[in-house]
Amino acid sequence: MAHRIYNFNAGPAALPLPVLEEIQEQFVDFKGTGMSITEVSHRSKWFDDVINDAVARTKRLLNLNDHFQVLFIQGGASLQFCMIPMNFVADGQCVNYINSGTWSTKAIKEAEIQGVDTRVIASSEDKNFSYIPTDYEIDSNAAYLHFTSNNTIKGTQFARFPDAGNVPLLCDMSSDFMSRPFDVAPFGFIYAGAQKNIGPSGCAMVIIRDDMLERVPDHLPTMLKYTTFANKNSMYNTPACFVIYAIDLVLKWLEDSVGGLEAVAKRNEEKAKTLYDFFDASDFYRGTAEKASRSLMNVTFRLPSEDLEQQFVAEALDEGMGGLKGHRSVGGCRASIYNATSIDAVNALVDFMKSFEAKNG
Amino acid sequence: MAHRIYNFNAGPAALPLPVLEEIQEQFVDFKGTGMSITEVSHRSKWFDDVINDAVARTKRLLNLNDHFQVLFIQGGASLQFCMIPMNFVADGQCVNYINSGTWSTKAIKEAEIQGVDTRVIASSEDKNFSYIPTDYEIDSNAAYLHFTSNNTIKGTQFARFPDAGNVPLLCDMSSDFMSRPFDVAPFGFIYAGAQKNIGPSGCAMVIIRDDMLERVPDHLPTMLKYTTFANKNSMYNTPACFVIYAIDLVLKWLEDSVGGLEAVAKRNEEKAKTLYDFFDASDFYRGTAEKASRSLMNVTFRLPSEDLEQQFVAEALDEGMGGLKGHRSVGGCRASIYNATSIDAVNALVDFMKSFEAKNG
Repeated sequence: MAHRIYNFNAGPAALPLPVLEEIQEQFVDFKGTGMSITEVSHRSKWFDDVINDAVARTKRLLNLNDHFQVLFIQGGASLQFCMIPMNFVADGQCVNYINSGTWSTKAIKEAEIQGVDTRVIASSEDKNFSYIPTDYEIDSNAAYLHFTSNNTIKGTQFARFPDAGNVPLLCDMSSDFMSRPFDVAPFGFIYAGAQKNIGPSGCAMVIIRDDMLERVPDHLPTMLKYTTFANKNSMYNTPACFVIYAIDLVLKWLEDSVGGLEAVAKRNEEKAKTLYDFFDASDFYRGTAEKASRSLMNVTFRLPSEDLEQQFVAEALDEGMGGLKGHRSVGGCRASIYNATSIDAVNALVDFMKSFEAKNG
Repeated sequence: MAHRIYNFNAGPAALPLPVLEEIQEQFVDFKGTGMSITEVSHRSKWFDDVINDAVARTKRLLNLNDHFQVLFIQGGASLQFCMIPMNFVADGQCVNYINSGTWSTKAIKEAEIQGVDTRVIASSEDKNFSYIPTDYEIDSNAAYLHFTSNNTIKGTQFARFPDAGNVPLLCDMSSDFMSRPFDVAPFGFIYAGAQKNIGPSGCAMVIIRDDMLERVPDHLPTMLKYTTFANKNSMYNTPACFVIYAIDLVLKWLEDSVGGLEAVAKRNEEKAKTLYDFFDASDFYRGTAEKASRSLMNVTFRLPSEDLEQQFVAEALDEGMGGLKGHRSVGGCRASIYNATSIDAVNALVDFMKSFEAKNG
């Protein structure tokens, strides 16, 4: 048995052990080809099978109809922040953003850099992004409404998505993609860096609807146009083959072993409830997000002092629990409990928290 | 022993077996962390060690002084085609390109799309890019001279680099990067998709000189500015961690096991000479590149008919030699013999070619 810790990293994050073991087993000879998956041509039948399987599984898991395409684009969510305003805004249109944290702030900045009429219709910056804004009016002629469904750093999550009427929803789902079922109909565009719930870093998955593809201007640089990826099954140039292969295996695990998004959502709710119930009964640990806005993916919390927080993170690692330090921009502690994190891991963490409190409380 | 073929793929391409075996061995527990390298935070000491080692090895292998930085950027060489004219051209400046094949044609197109005064000062398109142009005049006020050092598809390579005086050389070295020593002094910028000589697909390595960084305009989207990557050791956002890790191991193999660029160049010359000498003595196989322009990396050749070419590729695969089909845009056959391809592989190929000719010639 390989040595393994309970991994609470925010991303790159824990991956399902059966997926890692399958990659390991096949790494020098992928499916009898006599090549590693890293050595197989992206123009081969072998890789076609991989990418097509990843697309088909995504379509089944999200219940996508034929108006949606699934794309793989390098550069993470951060490159999407730039590409979105380039691709989707006609002359004279404004764009709407909800600002719920660090990543949406960055997305907004990229629209502003490009000189787009960028309207932040709601923000929770007044309370250090500790809640999800619910009070806003959407410009009926906006090119889109952009929001970030889960805020990895601040530990908040949209429990329900905005209703924008005819304005397409655009969503950065990096940190809760594939963690729960949802209705894709109001979405024109969804994107997610792979390194939270669906794979290693080095690729974003993009879900794009037909009508959004029709907006893409002709004059853009080739690699910054969504049509380039849509017209070539994400293989205009060499894609991130290994990452796409790993994503496919994670989606296979999610679909075939876990049982899909309803099943994983139930598990995710149980994991988060275990932690939040514990905080709510504790005077020592304190959750930082407002209750109605709590994230099921990233559980942010504080201890009575920064010294205790440092000690907590260090002792947890000694006990085989890693990644519990909060983001460097906010401090504190954070347990990221994505799909691949087991209930056992969460229970072990709670046990450790109890014993840490008993010693230091 | 794992089943392995001789892999002549053009990219993604063969990787050194010891590198693949090390990745495999560590895949579920990277250096005793209890995590896969795909699960380790990019903000950890562990990953810092990986990326810093890859940078340090690159600097040693290429003999780079402190005026050069080594960056890792997702999106392949194709995204670089777009970023170069955005980052390096002042108002009123022209740019010079040498057109030696498919990839330089694409690079030129991206400069033109952006409305830059793009001057193709030499081209070998007149003879289907079967040679490297040597006759040209460089605009003394050009922002740069761009060329493609090795043409993967056409099987040609610059034996000597252009002399552009004070105009910085910019080079797409995707398919011969790290295959031979060279003087970096005249280069302002070098880039290479990893998936030929240095790693899996999903990342380009960029070498950039100080004075080129000073040209980067402030107003560009964050992820399209070289300064963003230079100021944050390629970690403004989550990088392609697994690919960078694999690159580091390939560079370690190149430096410590092979003995550096002089040693690998000697090996590469021997491999290419073996194939070209064989063609030159054959009436059955015919190299497509002009002799003075032949690539040491991608050996392109034809058989007497397309039927025989198809039969050749299929029978070679049956004999454990893969990837010998020419690029879909040109047909014919191609043996890509990058750093990781052994002399044994080349000798086995020549033996097979002899027996194929004996049966079908």
